[in-house]
Amino acid sequence: MRLDVDKERLVTTMEEQAAIGATDGGGLHRLTLSDEDKAIRDWLRDEMEGLGLDVRVDAFGNMFGRREGTEDLPTVLVGSHMDSQPYGGIYDGQLGVVAALELVRCLEREGIETEHPIEVVNWTNEEGSRYQPAMQGSGVWAGVHDIDEQYDQTDENGARFEDELERIGYKGDVPAEPTEEYEAYLELHIEQGPYLEEGGHDVGVVTGVVGFTWGAITFYGEADHTGPTPMEYRRDALVPAADVITQIRRIPGTLGERTVGSTGYIDAGPNSINVIPGEVTFTWGFRDPSDEVVEEAYQRVLAEAEAAAEREGVEWEHEERMRAPSVEFADQCVEAVAGAADDAGYDSRYIFSGAGHDATHMTSLMDTGMVFAVSDDGKSHNEAEHTSWEDCHAAVTTTVNAAYDLATEEP
Amino acid sequence: MRLDVDKERLVTTMEEQAAIGATDGGGLHRLTLSDEDKAIRDWLRDEMEGLGLDVRVDAFGNMFGRREGTEDLPTVLVGSHMDSQPYGGIYDGQLGVVAALELVRCLEREGIETEHPIEVVNWTNEEGSRYQPAMQGSGVWAGVHDIDEQYDQTDENGARFEDELERIGYKGDVPAEPTEEYEAYLELHIEQGPYLEEGGHDVGVVTGVVGFTWGAITFYGEADHTGPTPMEYRRDALVPAADVITQIRRIPGTLGERTVGSTGYIDAGPNSINVIPGEVTFTWGFRDPSDEVVEEAYQRVLAEAEAAAEREGVEWEHEERMRAPSVEFADQCVEAVAGAADDAGYDSRYIFSGAGHDATHMTSLMDTGMVFAVSDDGKSHNEAEHTSWEDCHAAVTTTVNAAYDLATEEP
Repeated sequence: MRLDVDKERLVTTMEEQAAIGATDGGGLHRLTLSDEDKAIRDWLRDEMEGLGLDVRVDAFGNMFGRREGTEDLPTVLVGSHMDSQPYGGIYDGQLGVVAALELVRCLEREGIETEHPIEVVNWTNEEGSRYQPAMQGSGVWAGVHDIDEQYDQTDENGARFEDELERIGYKGDVPAEPTEEYEAYLELHIEQGPYLEEGGHDVGVVTGVVGFTWGAITFYGEADHTGPTPMEYRRDALVPAADVITQIRRIPGTLGERTVGSTGYIDAGPNSINVIPGEVTFTWGFRDPSDEVVEEAYQRVLAEAEAAAEREGVEWEHEERMRAPSVEFADQCVEAVAGAADDAGYDSRYIFSGAGHDATHMTSLMDTGMVFAVSDDGKSHNEAEHTSWEDCHAAVTTTVNAAYDLATEEP
Repeated sequence: MRLDVDKERLVTTMEEQAAIGATDGGGLHRLTLSDEDKAIRDWLRDEMEGLGLDVRVDAFGNMFGRREGTEDLPTVLVGSHMDSQPYGGIYDGQLGVVAALELVRCLEREGIETEHPIEVVNWTNEEGSRYQPAMQGSGVWAGVHDIDEQYDQTDENGARFEDELERIGYKGDVPAEPTEEYEAYLELHIEQGPYLEEGGHDVGVVTGVVGFTWGAITFYGEADHTGPTPMEYRRDALVPAADVITQIRRIPGTLGERTVGSTGYIDAGPNSINVIPGEVTFTWGFRDPSDEVVEEAYQRVLAEAEAAAEREGVEWEHEERMRAPSVEFADQCVEAVAGAADDAGYDSRYIFSGAGHDATHMTSLMDTGMVFAVSDDGKSHNEAEHTSWEDCHAAVTTTVNAAYDLATEEP
């Protein structure tokens, strides 16, 4: 049978969660471990307990709500993340956690028991903005990151991750690692790109995630007066940074059809109109479905930085902060999603994810799949991020039924 | 006769003033209208009153200490500025104000009266870092800037200039304009460049100041997720900024032997590793002894910005914040300085100033001249700024005697 998701209730729930950390521009400013994050976690706990779920919080703040199955079978895990980018959108990963709640609501309403247990999950710090790396909570849980090292991460004000987690009261007792056997993980997320909308599709059946590299480069020059210092005496740290940033724009076009590259962050010091910048830090990021292409892009940006530093006579250093290999999703999950979309009469397309998600870490532990919701104009990570309630409903319906499929044994 | 400057007293005075707003790195962090600025102004007032000067503070915070002359003749004005760059050096303009105090000390010690009155001056906000424009106090006094507009300037935290001036108690009663007749203005400043040291000279006889243009450019793109947004969909505001910054490095070399160009300041938003920058502001600055070259540089940077905006498909705007024509100093001042250096046995050279100084504004009102002190390694606007006490003494001695020459009528 197909589970019907109540569209009005879905909208109400989305609006409720969007009110916590809402911005004037219609977006969301709910950084990990902030007071807004605490508030949404409290809200989520209430929702889960209200649905009769057994709630646990692990030592890294990942939240789970468990619904027992009728058989001693591995658990189907469904969820995403509730934290947001600075002045981000209200849909991002939030729709995915709400979809997991909707799954349980549908089952409760219909009085259905599934053979496999089901767990709703909210991962800590998926966004990687206030603290890095991104997908931090799922990464620790999957054993990719060492929990003590992650506890020691500090934000730009020097606040320690563990201290902040304790501050908001979400450093749980349960070890931050799988404490159950898992059948599969399913995550709904907005596409954050233009392909579904462009093609007039209702929902995306995600087949995998690109690989990527991120990091930071710092050039060390010499701060000096912009006026009387002749050009040949300068060691301007901003000029080589600008050189590399223009190359970051250019490198993708030389590598692949799907390759993307960007600089999202730059900081120059002392940042005064009359002073030659003495120290500049900026970030690189490259993504592609091919791991070889990602490695090539990484090597090229370092080569450009070396050349730029040489040219200007400055020192430099770099730090790769994130490298993730590309992943392909498991057949049973891709088929469950495609089947759920077809059964509901939706126009779907297969699509590769250009963004990393918590699902990326899950692939090393269990069969994993994702569903994409349409993103209007492909906008994301800003307040203009938008998915129509119609498209939200299509994506949530697909997710709920795909998860139901995975949690049910054929008779 | 030649006035002898007591070197030990000079060093003591320099060390006293350097203690107010001292940084751990041996520099000075004494931004205009800060508490440190208030403290140094109070110190200066005490020094001036202690020397029997008649102290007045004008409506823009410019401080004057007057020593009457024996004749009804125009006043010789000597001084510079006590404010500093963020984490700047202890010599910059501070040496020039101390030189003016030393002039009065020498005259008092020798019991000398001059025909012309003499005034010591400390100009408000020469640095133009916290508030713009630079040379703000002397500019208002010279009628170049409208005082009410300048009162309304805000710093990056939104604090209004006039409010801050009142906060530190230096919004004086006297109108911020010449209330005396002036014979000449003489200013000692560190060279901030490498030429005097390179040539092994003791002191610089400044013949003029370069012309310059400064301003800011803002590119408006669209913030979006760095991952799933294909390259051809991007409107990245940082890429055109980087393009223009690399051109700013390049334009001077195509224009003149003395042309310099820089970007001192850049700000990208939202400045998050995973988000394409949607708005970027950065500054340009070009200087050259030729006004035609300055205009050419200005036109070129705008042309580069236009091309970069077109290429990336972003909007842009610009604002020129400062344009100053190059100036030549008056013969009587240049000769007074050269003569003072020769009489004291110093090895001097004629030199053009690459930096704007309060003297720049004085040229429209009276005969103006400057003295340069040697800058070690040409370093300035950072904590490594340094002039040996020997070279300080040479420059102060030259300044004191040049001013004495200007203040004295031949018998």
